[in-house]
Amino acid sequence: MSPTAPVTTSAPETRFERRLAKILGHATAIFCEKGYECASMRDLSRSSGMSLAGLYYYFESKEKLLYLIQKHYFTTVMTLLRERLEDVVGAEEPLRTFIVNHLEYFLSSPAATKVLSHEDDVLEDELGTEIRAIKREYYHSCTDLVDALKKEQSLEFNTRIAVLSLFGMMNWLHTWYNPRVDGDPRALARHIGDVFLRGIYSATTTL
Amino acid sequence: MSPTAPVTTSAPETRFERRLAKILGHATAIFCEKGYECASMRDLSRSSGMSLAGLYYYFESKEKLLYLIQKHYFTTVMTLLRERLEDVVGAEEPLRTFIVNHLEYFLSSPAATKVLSHEDDVLEDELGTEIRAIKREYYHSCTDLVDALKKEQSLEFNTRIAVLSLFGMMNWLHTWYNPRVDGDPRALARHIGDVFLRGIYSATTTL
Repeated sequence: MSPTAPVTTSAPETRFERRLAKILGHATAIFCEKGYECASMRDLSRSSGMSLAGLYYYFESKEKLLYLIQKHYFTTVMTLLRERLEDVVGAEEPLRTFIVNHLEYFLSSPAATKVLSHEDDVLEDELGTEIRAIKREYYHSCTDLVDALKKEQSLEFNTRIAVLSLFGMMNWLHTWYNPRVDGDPRALARHIGDVFLRGIYSATTTL
Repeated sequence: MSPTAPVTTSAPETRFERRLAKILGHATAIFCEKGYECASMRDLSRSSGMSLAGLYYYFESKEKLLYLIQKHYFTTVMTLLRERLEDVVGAEEPLRTFIVNHLEYFLSSPAATKVLSHEDDVLEDELGTEIRAIKREYYHSCTDLVDALKKEQSLEFNTRIAVLSLFGMMNWLHTWYNPRVDGDPRALARHIGDVFLRGIYSATTTL
């Protein structure tokens, strides 16, 4: 990461970091509202109350801003996951933990989740390559857990399609989740984990 | 539907209908590329080679255009579904048919699928109300099939979360589907149906 972009998963400490975190918050809201393509640096200037020159001191382009938002998002969710997995044993519980962690973080950051979901394929060149690598790492942290369960239980299924289906179940959620109807993220994670892990036929048929 | 918007699921027949279908194709491509918010009628004029005045003869606003795209999409997928379900019996096969129909149509219209997925909540007033009603009807055609299976097999699960998870599995697909790796839509529908219907535990545990 370049020295001008010290976004970390811990609380920002220097004045520069605090200011950058604040800009990222405004940028996320604007990208969410107008779409990345349509949002301008002028919009961000208005929303943050900073001059264009001031903004360019913190990052050199709109692409860099989207990169920082994506990097921060995936780095954070992966750090939280690693911390949670430290105390978890067995083959099913780690996968349940992955689902809870994903849902809790994604639902607690709805604007960023929408931006990431919509602007998934926008970044190119090195920035895009770096983000794709982080996302691949996150994806593999899930396939590793699924493969461990598959091996332990001698299951037969297509890991790639199963894992990407699981991501679909989780990532589509921001379009329909209603806490009053569907419960808190932890309850929802339990339901989704049930659909994924046991399927609706589990205990009643031997298909 | 207003008399100026005769979009049907059958091939367009009059000159007016053919021209409107062509405009909808251009509009879908532009909304997909630039995002609905950012796309202008001027962009559409350039892309379609029609004057602004000419465009306004076919529909009165950008909102109306998005409405027509969405309406056409859901009306078509529901008509195809009804036709397919006519010859299907049992409780599981109709649900499998729903999945195949959804995937085949959605994967054959990637630009429209992306537009619908991104601009899901844009329309307001009567246009939005009408689209939400059509989508609700489509959603219920799926919950009806799932409830029929649930009843026949005496299963216990949350229908709403299960069905919306299934939509997530299917609707997220446009972000990762690769025909060379994942097979054709029919093969994919079989895999996704397996994950959904049987779950990865189905035959090996009695959770």
